[in-house]
Amino acid sequence: MISEFDLIRRYFSRPAAHTVLGGGDDCALVQPAAGMLLAVSTDTLVSDVHFFADADPALLGWKSLAVNLSDLAAMGAQPRWATLALTVPAANESWLAAYADGLYRCAAAHDISLIGGDTTRGTLSLTLTVIGEVPYDSALRRDGARTGDAVWVSGTLGDAAFALAALQGRVEMDEADRAMLETRLHAPTPRVSLGLALRGLAHGAIDVSDGLAADLGHVLAHSHCGAVIDYALLPLSPVVRELTQHPIFDSCVLAGGDDYELCFTAPVEAEAEILAIGARLDVRLTAIGRIVAGSGLQWLDSAGRLMAATMTGYDHFAG
Amino acid sequence: MISEFDLIRRYFSRPAAHTVLGGGDDCALVQPAAGMLLAVSTDTLVSDVHFFADADPALLGWKSLAVNLSDLAAMGAQPRWATLALTVPAANESWLAAYADGLYRCAAAHDISLIGGDTTRGTLSLTLTVIGEVPYDSALRRDGARTGDAVWVSGTLGDAAFALAALQGRVEMDEADRAMLETRLHAPTPRVSLGLALRGLAHGAIDVSDGLAADLGHVLAHSHCGAVIDYALLPLSPVVRELTQHPIFDSCVLAGGDDYELCFTAPVEAEAEILAIGARLDVRLTAIGRIVAGSGLQWLDSAGRLMAATMTGYDHFAG
Repeated sequence: MISEFDLIRRYFSRPAAHTVLGGGDDCALVQPAAGMLLAVSTDTLVSDVHFFADADPALLGWKSLAVNLSDLAAMGAQPRWATLALTVPAANESWLAAYADGLYRCAAAHDISLIGGDTTRGTLSLTLTVIGEVPYDSALRRDGARTGDAVWVSGTLGDAAFALAALQGRVEMDEADRAMLETRLHAPTPRVSLGLALRGLAHGAIDVSDGLAADLGHVLAHSHCGAVIDYALLPLSPVVRELTQHPIFDSCVLAGGDDYELCFTAPVEAEAEILAIGARLDVRLTAIGRIVAGSGLQWLDSAGRLMAATMTGYDHFAG
Repeated sequence: MISEFDLIRRYFSRPAAHTVLGGGDDCALVQPAAGMLLAVSTDTLVSDVHFFADADPALLGWKSLAVNLSDLAAMGAQPRWATLALTVPAANESWLAAYADGLYRCAAAHDISLIGGDTTRGTLSLTLTVIGEVPYDSALRRDGARTGDAVWVSGTLGDAAFALAALQGRVEMDEADRAMLETRLHAPTPRVSLGLALRGLAHGAIDVSDGLAADLGHVLAHSHCGAVIDYALLPLSPVVRELTQHPIFDSCVLAGGDDYELCFTAPVEAEAEILAIGARLDVRLTAIGRIVAGSGLQWLDSAGRLMAATMTGYDHFAG
């Protein structure tokens, strides 16, 4: 069977940019740009918790890095370096080759270099740590939202959660619709370019990974303010728009998870500039409400009345 | 049950030094010192592979960080920041409290700050990523050994491997001896201060985590040279010295793993300076042989004759 050293050499040793010394030593050595802060984030995907054990390894490679890049995007950071801690039940070479291909494809698309890592035998688990760079004064933080800001969200909400529900037989849809949603579940697009474009413009920002309600809730809690969101303005894909009457609609769209969109706040006057960024990057950007004094999240129905809704996001240890 | 957010807040949110923004946002933000390289390393400990599932959580907390600090030590890097990806079967609060205590105790002892991470439910697994700082020209690399250098090793070899063998019933010893060796297995001391002291002095360096034979072998391969090691000079603890005739002696001492000592090469003229460093830091440092032209590792017996020995280190995927 292939050794750990050969495994790393064969599948995870492609050239790394911005790197003094890549894999193969005790540590990788990299040189950060002068005067920049480092943004650092770690996320783990575990088999049977975050994905099915028989998931397509190339898609897993993409997604395992993409979910981490989404955190860099939400800080407005330029991705630079990543490490991989890969735990696999066995050294299955075709699986490893496909996983590495997906990972490096996502890395190349977002200009980040894999500089090191560790491989271990055990239950399939993928931990990526990513490091990005951001100027001292323009990091997009959760605590930056201000009363009067507009609340924006990128892309569409609930696609991944409905895809998972379809895979689990909780909702029915035709094959083409399901395929469209599954792409959103298995190959999310981290909004890295959007995060960079929002430097100096957005006040508060977060990536929507546990559902809009929970993640926007974190922004509100950190920023000591509230928000009123217009339920009818939530951006939906055509497939999900057909499912608004489905019993799981709210749980998928407001508390779904795996959206990997950015939710951010910005001055109302910045609307035109933000829409221009969306047009330039070909990313749908939708203003869905306002930051208000107070605390907590309130929802308005299409008639402008407050709705009773208490959606919370996905939590690995609740329940 | 405790939520993921409360779990992090309760157990993994102690104040972080050298940090602009700690946990609680999408990323941590840290400010590297001007002109320094970053040394980055990731290591995973998996239940039933690297430790027993019922292991003392406080010791696991210490060890999971210590093994990563050992990689920074081997580069001569000053530890700065760490992230933790913690996968646990359930949110057992007494386990988490003890694990966090052990982790933070090791962090405090080596001046590194936990700045973020992720908690997930699954098979118990602990992935730490550590970031340190090292000046551009004084990183201790595997490829720096030169013909004529003396080969040094810190501490003693084989203690942890014999402790594991005792736990597995493969070797018998009295309780006091076993307790001494178990401390070496469960609570290794990363040689951070030694790595810092060797900046500008050592030519090649590595930490001994998979056994001296394999790890010194990496230095030789990267440095394109060979080594002749004097078997009788290998540093042994008093307990292990009593076991030299045991059938597993070579496999424990040369190919054991979990030593977390430093093996380094340095000019022969530096001997007095190196011994002074060892005295100042209270770390035993032993010259065990020489770097020679050619390739591979050769062993001399006490009569100065070449021995037939082909020891290799622990490999997660071999066999």
